[in-house]
Amino acid sequence: MSDAIIPHQQLLTLATGALAAAGLRPDDAAATAEILVLADMFGLRTHGISRVMQYAERVRVGGIDIAAEVAVTRVAPGLASVDGRNGMGPLVGARALQAAKEGAAAVGIGAAFARGSNHFGPIMPYAFLAAQEGYASIIASNATTTIAPWGGKETRVGNNPLGIGMPNPGGEPIILDMAMSVAARAKIRSLLQKGESIPEGWAADKDGKPTTDARAALDGFLLPVGGHKGYGLAVMVDLLAGLLSGAAYLTQVEAWDKNPGLAQNLGHVFILIDTQKLGSQAWLHERMDDFREILNSTPPADPAAPVLAPGERELTIYARQKNEGVAVAEADLAALKAMLA
Amino acid sequence: MSDAIIPHQQLLTLATGALAAAGLRPDDAAATAEILVLADMFGLRTHGISRVMQYAERVRVGGIDIAAEVAVTRVAPGLASVDGRNGMGPLVGARALQAAKEGAAAVGIGAAFARGSNHFGPIMPYAFLAAQEGYASIIASNATTTIAPWGGKETRVGNNPLGIGMPNPGGEPIILDMAMSVAARAKIRSLLQKGESIPEGWAADKDGKPTTDARAALDGFLLPVGGHKGYGLAVMVDLLAGLLSGAAYLTQVEAWDKNPGLAQNLGHVFILIDTQKLGSQAWLHERMDDFREILNSTPPADPAAPVLAPGERELTIYARQKNEGVAVAEADLAALKAMLA
Repeated sequence: MSDAIIPHQQLLTLATGALAAAGLRPDDAAATAEILVLADMFGLRTHGISRVMQYAERVRVGGIDIAAEVAVTRVAPGLASVDGRNGMGPLVGARALQAAKEGAAAVGIGAAFARGSNHFGPIMPYAFLAAQEGYASIIASNATTTIAPWGGKETRVGNNPLGIGMPNPGGEPIILDMAMSVAARAKIRSLLQKGESIPEGWAADKDGKPTTDARAALDGFLLPVGGHKGYGLAVMVDLLAGLLSGAAYLTQVEAWDKNPGLAQNLGHVFILIDTQKLGSQAWLHERMDDFREILNSTPPADPAAPVLAPGERELTIYARQKNEGVAVAEADLAALKAMLA
Repeated sequence: MSDAIIPHQQLLTLATGALAAAGLRPDDAAATAEILVLADMFGLRTHGISRVMQYAERVRVGGIDIAAEVAVTRVAPGLASVDGRNGMGPLVGARALQAAKEGAAAVGIGAAFARGSNHFGPIMPYAFLAAQEGYASIIASNATTTIAPWGGKETRVGNNPLGIGMPNPGGEPIILDMAMSVAARAKIRSLLQKGESIPEGWAADKDGKPTTDARAALDGFLLPVGGHKGYGLAVMVDLLAGLLSGAAYLTQVEAWDKNPGLAQNLGHVFILIDTQKLGSQAWLHERMDDFREILNSTPPADPAAPVLAPGERELTIYARQKNEGVAVAEADLAALKAMLA
């Protein structure tokens, strides 16, 4: 599939227009498009505007409610409860981010717990938007089950993403966006297509036995990083993002690829901290630059591969694509344009 | 070393007395002893009252200030900044926990960022105390550097512990308490003493190359879970607990075993969420029991090893030792009694 390079503002306008044409209110379309275009700008293309068509298809079969009005209830000065009402995931995410930000602006730290949501894109765009306004963030979501509880042989936990971000006023933030498995299912699928085996430690077969066979791995389950540690993190993310938000959790979460017409009722959690309450911008900037320098100046094991901070690769791609335009698949661009027609 | 079994209240009284005899104010001695005795009750004996003598030795050589008055400054309704003033770690931790709790009680979510601290014990006791009062928690600390940044060959990141807890009103909470390395240095030391090699994936030698030689591993560094993922988590914990709290971070943290007379200036972060603002106790209890049942009923890969929730093993030990008494080393008990004499 060939790529097009398009200025980011133009991509944002196009994606906003396409989502509005699909039935989103103008404000909601803009908020949703902002998250997806940022994903593409970070080079996270599997979670960018390529998803619009998938979301639209789920709207078509009744799995997502394009007309949903996301409801935000402030349950305490620092806490908001968000009901996504089965709207588009990135829209629910953007509204929850805003609610958490309002809490943090008011009382120093704010959280939003969202239920009734769908796939909300990668976490990096949310953490980046928070960092741009001086907020540190902890953001997480639950997901369709693809991991077995440690010691078990049935998928009952999601490969739940967790992101943490720290702003650097006038400099580059540091942002982690990770899921809990050693490798993604997409990587295993890709090796299967090439007829290759997978490395040890990636997956287990349906009987819970370690496997290097890609087909057996896809019929089995993903292994979490660090065994019981990654399993534990995936569980705790689901407790915060799913259980405490009032969303579905563990096996209650519907798989969108198996049942596209059913509401998933995913949950997210957003915790934002106003760093300016803890020190001046100059203080934070100096410490952040020093911190990054300690990491970057570590002698590398491979002299050709310098040591990076979390998110540094994506932020470098972002800076380049902001100046030079964003790479997206021609086919995805054409599909967006077709939605506008 | 032989063990004694002692009723937990008696152990608490003894540890409190010993710490008070060492120079802590009575309230501070009680708060410190509570954390350490809970660690022993969970079976986390390397982080329990066995540490009192080590802390006392650091006090003796001027590394910890036994007379420190921990200072709590409320910088926003939901945010507290805590200066441990180089006091005992568990004391600083207990005061920071209290400050975060007050924030959460007032505005739904509260955080405390602590600097000027020392080794604060395991995280499970803090998360457990929070859960007993209905607070979900995210708690973390930075630590002496033992991990190399991913792709690097020099230790510049701590094996920073992260804990997350969720209460279950009238039932058992779920609590994760993990560090970022695949294996602890203590395990490698123990295999070295037995003349055994270590499994692949635990550590790298000083040139950053994977090793199964225990000696080379101890001269090198620990490998983080999931490679860049565990490295990323360790970094983000240091950014929250160390950098944002105003504490030392990365290579600035003094190693207590190498320089016992120097202040470590460790940092911690405590984030507490008042779950009652998000739903009733009955609602939370029902969901927590259901959640745990989904995990526990997973078909196990080994029929003799049922699937557990995070922290379940430690909470089972806690319940037993609360009824039957706490196992501690005779030598540690004798040392506590000697401090009282």
